[in-house]
Amino acid sequence: MSDTTKYAVFGAGSWATAIVKMLCENLDEVGWYMRSVYAKEHILKEKHNPSYLSSVEFHTEQLKLSNDINELADWADVLVFVIPSAFMYSELEKLTVDISNKTIVSAVKGIIPESGLLVGEHFHDIYKIPFENIAVIAGPCHAEEVALERLSYLTISCADPVKAQAIADNLASDYIKTKISDDVIGVEYAVMMKNIYAIAAGIAHGLGYGDNFQSVLMSNAIREMKRFIKKMHKMKRNINNSAYLGDLLVTGYSVFSRNRMFGNMIGKGYTVKSAQMEMNMIAEGYYATKSAHLLNKTNKKKAQLPIINAVYAILYENKDPKKVFKKLTEKLD
Amino acid sequence: MSDTTKYAVFGAGSWATAIVKMLCENLDEVGWYMRSVYAKEHILKEKHNPSYLSSVEFHTEQLKLSNDINELADWADVLVFVIPSAFMYSELEKLTVDISNKTIVSAVKGIIPESGLLVGEHFHDIYKIPFENIAVIAGPCHAEEVALERLSYLTISCADPVKAQAIADNLASDYIKTKISDDVIGVEYAVMMKNIYAIAAGIAHGLGYGDNFQSVLMSNAIREMKRFIKKMHKMKRNINNSAYLGDLLVTGYSVFSRNRMFGNMIGKGYTVKSAQMEMNMIAEGYYATKSAHLLNKTNKKKAQLPIINAVYAILYENKDPKKVFKKLTEKLD
Repeated sequence: MSDTTKYAVFGAGSWATAIVKMLCENLDEVGWYMRSVYAKEHILKEKHNPSYLSSVEFHTEQLKLSNDINELADWADVLVFVIPSAFMYSELEKLTVDISNKTIVSAVKGIIPESGLLVGEHFHDIYKIPFENIAVIAGPCHAEEVALERLSYLTISCADPVKAQAIADNLASDYIKTKISDDVIGVEYAVMMKNIYAIAAGIAHGLGYGDNFQSVLMSNAIREMKRFIKKMHKMKRNINNSAYLGDLLVTGYSVFSRNRMFGNMIGKGYTVKSAQMEMNMIAEGYYATKSAHLLNKTNKKKAQLPIINAVYAILYENKDPKKVFKKLTEKLD
Repeated sequence: MSDTTKYAVFGAGSWATAIVKMLCENLDEVGWYMRSVYAKEHILKEKHNPSYLSSVEFHTEQLKLSNDINELADWADVLVFVIPSAFMYSELEKLTVDISNKTIVSAVKGIIPESGLLVGEHFHDIYKIPFENIAVIAGPCHAEEVALERLSYLTISCADPVKAQAIADNLASDYIKTKISDDVIGVEYAVMMKNIYAIAAGIAHGLGYGDNFQSVLMSNAIREMKRFIKKMHKMKRNINNSAYLGDLLVTGYSVFSRNRMFGNMIGKGYTVKSAQMEMNMIAEGYYATKSAHLLNKTNKKKAQLPIINAVYAILYENKDPKKVFKKLTEKLD
């Protein structure tokens, strides 16, 4: 990728907005696709996203805004997807241009429900993108702190280290430090799994468990994550690196995490449906729970996943959170 | 140790009070030494500790209270020390009875400043207690949550697994789950080091770093802890177990941690002296920082300790927290 490599971001939520802001620190022009005509017009006129990170002011001359996914997918060399996993499939259905020679960067936190695939795998299987052209952005990184320009660290994973470094360089700035990794699959699983553990942390909190238990839960969660990822894709990795443990912690300890909030409501006695209606959205971890459970169940090499199985039983088998967590506490140490 | 093994707890702070409560769930009589005549009389009359965890009611007929350290050191078979490390040496100087045949349990969180030794080593070197008679209690466990009977997990480490299990059984209850380990030295170092990282977390917070950075700091801290302990005492251990990672998290993420509070004041511009005066106490991590720094410096096998070195430079070399942390951020990933 040369200096003139063109980037486009697909999505208009807070994480997408944060990534556009990061790219704008380094690039003359950044493509930005969003569905909402209103949001696009608002950004052009008011210089900020109407709904997310609205404190972030953009120089609109830097932005190539569009409501046409094909326009930007065609224009850009690097397509950065930051759409909730639940909407990825329907958004991608709109694609008519050929993207097989593009670099795909996923900042999606989860599995695509319709295909049951990690975002990288989905692009590889369905769009024939070679793995060396697929990258993943991992935190730990709340978008809100990017807006405040508080120091944050990102890990960019790609099988091709030159590509990973180029993307990393274009995201780095005074307040963003980046490192690269070649564990695309492991990092994607970690990004997905942390949301399940955030739901678990929320359920525990909703049930009245305290900080002592929360730390035991996180200590068990990182060991469970390590076991799971090892069975899915064995390679040398340090699970305590920021992209795995750091990202788990920033999500699991955040009271603002939507996954934790969703879990908290479940722990307090809401049904899954009423919690989803109350939140007016579906937490990523809800789908991730089903995917992780299924992936492990159908994998020849099964990992012991007491926390994920507990969350699955509560969300998908209508089991009583209190009883399920009581049993879970016996399995943790 | 038989069923009639007698336990005495030495100390009257919140953690000591919590441990007395745990033992009272299992034993007919628990010895409890404290310096303060007033506190002893208050407990006898009002059934609760006047200064710490005062919501915990004791059945005073279960307590063998004393202001005489020798009386209880002589009476008990198992001596549980829960005195701040800074006061251990002066308290132990009062001992005139022979304790060489006793079992020593340390719930002290730090190194004894006068000897520069871990509590276990101190008892071994100075009181000739064999290592198989020395145990350590590790969390993650805020005493306040024990008072509320919120589910908590403890790890009891002892070279003798039978002894470890007996102690574990006497601490376990509906709300306390226990496990045993044989890594006495590693667990003692972990308990000590977490307080340094809590100071680091506090300094970062005081300087205005956010949650994203905090999770990177913790991710680096657990890797640093692993490196340090490995150089000090190499053995197979999973650093992500609750006694290491869990304890680090419950302390590093607690806004009530005195070490974190101390660090926060330093980050906000207090001098070490004024922070200590304001808090009216010295945080354990203050001594631990000096000890860990010195231990690593004098060890033939040195570990890379960027976080501990940064805290040391701020607390003991009068370096500017802002500059030191700016440099530290370059070393983390």
